[in-house]
Amino acid sequence: MTVPAAIRWEGSRLWLLDQRKLPETVVYEEQTSAEMVAASIASMKVRGAPAIGIAAAYGMALAVRAGGDLAKAARVLVAARPTAINLAWAVNRVLRANDPVAQAETIHREHTEMCRAIGANGMGLITENSAVLTHCNAGALAVSTLGTATAPLYLAHDASVRFTVFVDETRPLLQGARLTAWELLQAGLDVTLICDSMVSHLMSQGDIDLVIVGADRVTANGDVVNKIGTRGIAIASRYHGVPFHVALPSSTFDADTATGADVDIEQRDASEVTESIRAAPGVQVQNPAFDVTPAELVTSWITDRGRIQDARDLAGLKQP
Amino acid sequence: MTVPAAIRWEGSRLWLLDQRKLPETVVYEEQTSAEMVAASIASMKVRGAPAIGIAAAYGMALAVRAGGDLAKAARVLVAARPTAINLAWAVNRVLRANDPVAQAETIHREHTEMCRAIGANGMGLITENSAVLTHCNAGALAVSTLGTATAPLYLAHDASVRFTVFVDETRPLLQGARLTAWELLQAGLDVTLICDSMVSHLMSQGDIDLVIVGADRVTANGDVVNKIGTRGIAIASRYHGVPFHVALPSSTFDADTATGADVDIEQRDASEVTESIRAAPGVQVQNPAFDVTPAELVTSWITDRGRIQDARDLAGLKQP
Repeated sequence: MTVPAAIRWEGSRLWLLDQRKLPETVVYEEQTSAEMVAASIASMKVRGAPAIGIAAAYGMALAVRAGGDLAKAARVLVAARPTAINLAWAVNRVLRANDPVAQAETIHREHTEMCRAIGANGMGLITENSAVLTHCNAGALAVSTLGTATAPLYLAHDASVRFTVFVDETRPLLQGARLTAWELLQAGLDVTLICDSMVSHLMSQGDIDLVIVGADRVTANGDVVNKIGTRGIAIASRYHGVPFHVALPSSTFDADTATGADVDIEQRDASEVTESIRAAPGVQVQNPAFDVTPAELVTSWITDRGRIQDARDLAGLKQP
Repeated sequence: MTVPAAIRWEGSRLWLLDQRKLPETVVYEEQTSAEMVAASIASMKVRGAPAIGIAAAYGMALAVRAGGDLAKAARVLVAARPTAINLAWAVNRVLRANDPVAQAETIHREHTEMCRAIGANGMGLITENSAVLTHCNAGALAVSTLGTATAPLYLAHDASVRFTVFVDETRPLLQGARLTAWELLQAGLDVTLICDSMVSHLMSQGDIDLVIVGADRVTANGDVVNKIGTRGIAIASRYHGVPFHVALPSSTFDADTATGADVDIEQRDASEVTESIRAAPGVQVQNPAFDVTPAELVTSWITDRGRIQDARDLAGLKQP
């Protein structure tokens, strides 16, 4: 099984998979400076909060190797995408470390282990001949090896469980069609693409046995903030009696925010919706990037520290 | 208020709006023979079951005017889209009429009156400052003046009610973004485009007060067969307590089919999903064109014969 890596660090050299060119072209571009890594983050050659953090950590490592100004490299990297929490967290960790290069490698390894733990805690849900739906890309491309929502899929596939994965296209940016479908096919999984609007019909036909999605944030009460469309899938799952699971690293649990209603939902540019679809000229657009799935609709939260079935037990994920 | 006409019959000459070119280009193409009308139907310059029927009826009228072979014209027109029930129905009605041209005009007028009746029966649902969601195109372009799901909107707008309409893009063929948004804007309505996956989020914010969709078929028990995605909207509506209404001409009521489960759902070509979105090469695709919305999720059926709130009363729509 070959799970594509978003980030390669080999012999103290850094390569990033240019995700803007997927799925047509698979190009790893060597990064030769912290500034170049920052530009790659800003232009979304690398995306997904954990992957951005890892890339930035290695960007700091490159600055160290070059004998450059670490404080300046840190500023450039953190400014690349100001809203990504992982970015500042990873850069500051490397900045404070005695051995920055080793620290970057540690950050990368921790993510890899976290994904593997999520996979181990979730793979039992994937049974022979089952069909799993996932949404957006909470995959290897967004994190590092195995991803979060995809980790149970990869480990089940590696254990020779036969199952199929439905991937919805995830309008407007099509991360499901372009990224998730691609990485799962690379690893040899059985993948079927559907439009976002087809989920409820497939569930009505009994074609989907369970859902696993990722999360951008899980609030104290278990509400799930994730890519727009997640909420609708969870509601359809409840109506059809389909289990709905959320995969998350414990670092995604936000103990300080009470509920999803306390989270501001980013409105993105209208052009993301209109630019490729021949929309009626002059039409107004709403483009919320995320939505909130109520905790009551979640069957389990699959974390690196175990699979949680009661939202009250999420408190145990709180970071020290 | 100017509602765009899909079909114009003026001075015994026929023009069809080429819907394939919408929304970029508005072109009415004169049709000079039944064969040309059949070609326009086959290539989907005109689409929507009622509009196809009206166009074919006028195609027969053109054959009569040209002194052509009516039986042959009928065969060519019916073969243009074999699965469209309205097509054979309209052609046969003209074929059997003493005055074929007057019969075509009658069919057109009946549809116009039917849309107006649906509008009159539904416009009371559109209250000042409300927000209505519709799906796909059950509009003027699919029928004739006013459309079905759009008729209450047009009449409310004409009565100076201020309200907003959310139109979802309706993947994969984008009839919402390309056609419904366009025709509502032409008529001066306030229109906002969203992706199909955003409906549930908007409902959670209280941004949608009611839903009105069309129907391809309503079965004896009130189940609604309509464009893929309708079912998911209905389930989200129930979860959020948003009324979900279905607009239909009584001719769409199918008393001979017990439930939606008895209706075969057309699977269309994978290329409709993949061709414009950079999908991962080699991915399998499902592309069901319709889905079934359970009668239990329908708040009311808005028909030309009144607004029905109990599925048992649908039996009164049965055609003689």
